[in-house]
Amino acid sequence: MKIEVHLERLKQPDAEARLKSTRLAVLAPGSVEQHGPHLPLGTDAFAAMSIAEAVAQRLNTVLVPLPLIGVSPYHQSWPGSLSLQAQTFIAVIEDVCDCIARHSADKLLFVNWHEGNSPALRLAGDSVQRKFNVRVVIAESHLITNKLFGERAQLTHAGNMETAAVMMYDPSLVDVRKADNPSSQADADAMHAVFREKDVFPILRDFHEVAPTGWYGKPEEATLELAQQIREKVSEYIAERAQIEFGRNSRLPE
Amino acid sequence: MKIEVHLERLKQPDAEARLKSTRLAVLAPGSVEQHGPHLPLGTDAFAAMSIAEAVAQRLNTVLVPLPLIGVSPYHQSWPGSLSLQAQTFIAVIEDVCDCIARHSADKLLFVNWHEGNSPALRLAGDSVQRKFNVRVVIAESHLITNKLFGERAQLTHAGNMETAAVMMYDPSLVDVRKADNPSSQADADAMHAVFREKDVFPILRDFHEVAPTGWYGKPEEATLELAQQIREKVSEYIAERAQIEFGRNSRLPE
Amino acid sequence: MKIEVHLERLKQPDAEARLKSTRLAVLAPGSVEQHGPHLPLGTDAFAAMSIAEAVAQRLNTVLVPLPLIGVSPYHQSWPGSLSLQAQTFIAVIEDVCDCIARHSADKLLFVNWHEGNSPALRLAGDSVQRKFNVRVVIAESHLITNKLFGERAQLTHAGNMETAAVMMYDPSLVDVRKADNPSSQADADAMHAVFREKDVFPILRDFHEVAPTGWYGKPEEATLELAQQIREKVSEYIAERAQIEFGRNSRLPE
Amino acid sequence: MKIEVHLERLKQPDAEARLKSTRLAVLAPGSVEQHGPHLPLGTDAFAAMSIAEAVAQRLNTVLVPLPLIGVSPYHQSWPGSLSLQAQTFIAVIEDVCDCIARHSADKLLFVNWHEGNSPALRLAGDSVQRKFNVRVVIAESHLITNKLFGERAQLTHAGNMETAAVMMYDPSLVDVRKADNPSSQADADAMHAVFREKDVFPILRDFHEVAPTGWYGKPEEATLELAQQIREKVSEYIAERAQIEFGRNSRLPE
Amino acid sequence: MKIEVHLERLKQPDAEARLKSTRLAVLAPGSVEQHGPHLPLGTDAFAAMSIAEAVAQRLNTVLVPLPLIGVSPYHQSWPGSLSLQAQTFIAVIEDVCDCIARHSADKLLFVNWHEGNSPALRLAGDSVQRKFNVRVVIAESHLITNKLFGERAQLTHAGNMETAAVMMYDPSLVDVRKADNPSSQADADAMHAVFREKDVFPILRDFHEVAPTGWYGKPEEATLELAQQIREKVSEYIAERAQIEFGRNSRLPE
Amino acid sequence: MKIEVHLERLKQPDAEARLKSTRLAVLAPGSVEQHGPHLPLGTDAFAAMSIAEAVAQRLNTVLVPLPLIGVSPYHQSWPGSLSLQAQTFIAVIEDVCDCIARHSADKLLFVNWHEGNSPALRLAGDSVQRKFNVRVVIAESHLITNKLFGERAQLTHAGNMETAAVMMYDPSLVDVRKADNPSSQADADAMHAVFREKDVFPILRDFHEVAPTGWYGKPEEATLELAQQIREKVSEYIAERAQIEFGRNSRLPE
Repeated sequence: MKIEVHLERLKQPDAEARLKSTRLAVLAPGSVEQHGPHLPLGTDAFAAMSIAEAVAQRLNTVLVPLPLIGVSPYHQSWPGSLSLQAQTFIAVIEDVCDCIARHSADKLLFVNWHEGNSPALRLAGDSVQRKFNVRVVIAESHLITNKLFGERAQLTHAGNMETAAVMMYDPSLVDVRKADNPSSQADADAMHAVFREKDVFPILRDFHEVAPTGWYGKPEEATLELAQQIREKVSEYIAERAQIEFGRNSRLPE
Repeated sequence: MKIEVHLERLKQPDAEARLKSTRLAVLAPGSVEQHGPHLPLGTDAFAAMSIAEAVAQRLNTVLVPLPLIGVSPYHQSWPGSLSLQAQTFIAVIEDVCDCIARHSADKLLFVNWHEGNSPALRLAGDSVQRKFNVRVVIAESHLITNKLFGERAQLTHAGNMETAAVMMYDPSLVDVRKADNPSSQADADAMHAVFREKDVFPILRDFHEVAPTGWYGKPEEATLELAQQIREKVSEYIAERAQIEFGRNSRLPE
Repeated sequence: MKIEVHLERLKQPDAEARLKSTRLAVLAPGSVEQHGPHLPLGTDAFAAMSIAEAVAQRLNTVLVPLPLIGVSPYHQSWPGSLSLQAQTFIAVIEDVCDCIARHSADKLLFVNWHEGNSPALRLAGDSVQRKFNVRVVIAESHLITNKLFGERAQLTHAGNMETAAVMMYDPSLVDVRKADNPSSQADADAMHAVFREKDVFPILRDFHEVAPTGWYGKPEEATLELAQQIREKVSEYIAERAQIEFGRNSRLPE
Repeated sequence: MKIEVHLERLKQPDAEARLKSTRLAVLAPGSVEQHGPHLPLGTDAFAAMSIAEAVAQRLNTVLVPLPLIGVSPYHQSWPGSLSLQAQTFIAVIEDVCDCIARHSADKLLFVNWHEGNSPALRLAGDSVQRKFNVRVVIAESHLITNKLFGERAQLTHAGNMETAAVMMYDPSLVDVRKADNPSSQADADAMHAVFREKDVFPILRDFHEVAPTGWYGKPEEATLELAQQIREKVSEYIAERAQIEFGRNSRLPE
Repeated sequence: MKIEVHLERLKQPDAEARLKSTRLAVLAPGSVEQHGPHLPLGTDAFAAMSIAEAVAQRLNTVLVPLPLIGVSPYHQSWPGSLSLQAQTFIAVIEDVCDCIARHSADKLLFVNWHEGNSPALRLAGDSVQRKFNVRVVIAESHLITNKLFGERAQLTHAGNMETAAVMMYDPSLVDVRKADNPSSQADADAMHAVFREKDVFPILRDFHEVAPTGWYGKPEEATLELAQQIREKVSEYIAERAQIEFGRNSRLPE
Repeated sequence: MKIEVHLERLKQPDAEARLKSTRLAVLAPGSVEQHGPHLPLGTDAFAAMSIAEAVAQRLNTVLVPLPLIGVSPYHQSWPGSLSLQAQTFIAVIEDVCDCIARHSADKLLFVNWHEGNSPALRLAGDSVQRKFNVRVVIAESHLITNKLFGERAQLTHAGNMETAAVMMYDPSLVDVRKADNPSSQADADAMHAVFREKDVFPILRDFHEVAPTGWYGKPEEATLELAQQIREKVSEYIAERAQIEFGRNSRLPE
């Protein structure tokens, strides 16, 4: 049986012991935003949390609760989608890390799934590192999932990868039968690539620019078995890589 | 069977429909802070969420996810306790309410359990009301619980009321056998009353001022039956009162 | 004859001596807002200042000047009413307390009269306590006045209690003959109680919600004798209680 | 007899009438800082307020209360001196002007005495002008006093001009007998000139740089007659000049 | 001969005409940070500006001046390196874009060279897009240079690519003879890759972690011819791609 | 030949040596704003930079790059004019000075040309002085130029003084033939004097209030010889005065 890692579910003496023995904490920023008629609004939060939980178990430490909500302004034209301003998102992370850094954790591992969070997360991590004298490592779990599972876990929005991600967390939240209005995958892939380009790219204003119906991909391909494999392999990948990163001897000047 | 109300677990079309038909949203600010060796750090978050969930079910609307973490600086000497600065707490609420107000909700009901949140929650509510043209109602669920259940639900810290509150959410998180170091209830009651006084009072710096061991009260008195009754009665009380408050015709000038 | 306590009226060497010998300072946040046609806009500021002055005299220390203006957004539909944003109000208190804490005062007693200030004052006090290593005690002088004088000093707006409060400061500022448009006391009491409720309550947007004419109560009942008694008894009550609170040995952890 | 102009002393209907008929408001930022053993800490606040009061009477309008405290960081090594951070000072002015601009005042006249306020006051005035669509005029009353009265009102610190300024407000606050430790006027004049130079100048860190005892000048030369003349002539000068400035037809583009 | 594009060098009527006819502006955030003993501190600023200038010429528009300084906290252990906090960097961009958006430019092309700027630039671009109703396109010119020129323009720090980049701007600023203390390229490449990893990565605290001497690479390989080609090809690439991005019909909802 | 002083053009070891040996840095805040049809938008930035460069050469130290853009809201009705908010301007200066103060410079000399910058520059200088324990000296180079050259360098906008100032930097940026729409000098002088008055003055909203065409004066009178003299004499004046100011023994209390 897996150990309990959710800090909020632990008793204080147990959390303290875990923080002091490992000096490590895992944090999973989320996002609550539309994922079509078949996946829940909290898809990205559930994905990150589910993998982060497995990572924390592997590292025998705690998962510190961050808001389920992330930085998702470009989904706001679909009611129910929520978003923090980037500076609020950063402020929350600073406040939380201030606490746990004072409680002995000087290695902070962020497990993120939502690409809209990435720039703000990086700035938050940099700020936290300088202010609280900790080492921050970020794991972009959606990229790792796609890297490890390829076509079975495509970087669409609300397709096979994200459907499996929700299944990791709670299969009852998936209702593939409702997935009846996908945007054209060819068109959406092409437009998504435009915004994800690394060298010259516009900044996404509204996800309608990518997919008029808000989602695309093949949710019907997701399986519980795939979900299980993602959780297993991606958490293993992150745990191993994080240990390497935290283990480096920094060559900082005096 | 109860309807699903957690916004993050709903699909977007369902959340949108709920928001537009009721124009109402329920929000439950939390807190993650030490509650002795027998209750989880997230006690206040679980209590608020559990009651808020029942309130949202009664009102047939959604529960919008706020951070589990609240304003708890005076528990920081116990590692694992987390706290947002008041201005961060307010900023999160403003950002979230900005989204849902634009998504048609103009009646916002906050169900709070943690008294440390109250001043910041009031300022947040005032700000949200002015900025987004909504009506805010706040329910202080711990006071209601105590009012309705009296000696069975005392306003201690981690005693019978809060133990029952965790049982509402998940009884497996309670371990009364570990509750072996209560602070003196007489002393703690006396000191807690000092900080809770309404007319002349100091502001609490550290909960050691109230209880050297961090908690006091009678967790062993909590029962699942009590937990069930609290959820039932308190949510009923809040739902009824909130409907009255939202139903008033405001006498605002032109 | 009473000693001079207003810091701004003292010469610097005298203020320094007073601060260093008592390590204590009294501060009185105000409010400038409509109080009907018979009481001045600064009613709450005058009330707080008058009592705070008497408290400072009893404690042989100084009264540090805060703005006359407080947090009163809900009176803004009556021109001439002024309000600071809560964050500005807090920033002023932080700046002032930073100065006096560096000048040896580590016991800060706030004497407040305006209930609209209370949540922001509490956050300011908490912030000041943590940033400048002082002990903050708050006295809500309007509640004390009502507690000590009951029906003669009702918690209406611009009624007998507040009329007496202005008389404490300067009777020439009261003109009861103009008090010709009270709102219905029954209606206003009922609505005021709604917003002052402790368990489930809306947040006041505009004082028209309480009283369409902006005030209610019985200003004609106030007398100079009552005014004198309020100043005497309330300041005595606060001074005694504050000394007790500042005298406690805090049980803070190392 | 002079009309009452202090907004906080007016009843709301009178304040509203005054604001609406003149569309003008006078504001007097203060300062609370050491002025030697013979003048009160609030010297600059009293000076500004006294002149501003007379200006408001001449213009038949209101004097809106600003904090007595201004921007005086360089006096903080004398306990009892108070200072707001520049951004706090600006925030207060913005909040207050937001209120009165909404209450019909679109001509705002600031009467300042404390030169430490000037840069922040200018930025506040600029901000207020742009945000609230008003016209701001600033009067530097200490410069005008010196201009009109010359050697009888020197720009020292706590000398004849400032002693007379306090006498304008309340002669009982002056105790010239205690003025026994002036700094050398020659040295202080020379150093003050350095910091007041217009073309190349250091920024004052601490008033010890100007005067080791905190003050210099000839308080013994101040008389009640001079005080009376200053109030009369300076307020007349400001009122006339302000009317000219507010009366100009702005040549703004469409 | 090339047209003048630097906004600060244009006369106002010419700048206005250019902004109104193209509705486009180019902006080049910089960085001032150590680049070894052979390249100037402003290397990244010069690189970005040089390419941006050529891009603006191709697009017949203006280059709007941003600060030479960017976000480079990890170079601060080498004196002379400068850095803005991310929030300051964002505030500057917001202020500047507010101006030019009001002056008709609704297409904003950022040409960046410094990878430390990228997360803050993305957040600034997102903010600007939402606040001022413009379209933002970002070009990461260092990545494009490396993409187009491969081994001749490696992504080291102060190696052949950056040496050529300075040559584009002003060859007299390069002094390859001083380049006598490169860090090991193998080690630095390996460590740089760790921080540039996309899936699991630590955040760079200090560039000593990458290269103990602050730089690595082969500056001696840079030539004026290469510099000329970079300017030519990279600006052409960006201009063409930007035109495509700005030309897309956004599919935004009503 | 003159030494290179632009920090961004120096190699890091040279900048470090210069900072450590002199402990001094020169900074030149700029402004980019309309200067008629004959002078470039960056006139004030070029003027300040050109003089500051000569000052830095005389003092054998570095010129640290600040943004070309300053605080110029009142020129925004002429497209192409740029402005930072005062708080952004201050934040940039704080960030940059934080860096160089940590890199050994504790004497900071600001050479300003744009009078719109002055209040914010003073606040920035005060903040920097208190936060980073440095001494700040400000030189208002336009006032010095006018003081030294009188009628040949008038304090108009875009007249002989500013035309010469641009010639100092780059004569090719001046095109006097286009200077065909001066505003009336008599009118503009009169109105400019109103806003520059020291005792009672309105705050400038829009430069149309001073000069309907945006400029006035006699650009045709400027000569290269005058430009050369201004650079020579004004930089000499500033360098000498600054050395005196930095050389004073501060009389700060313990």
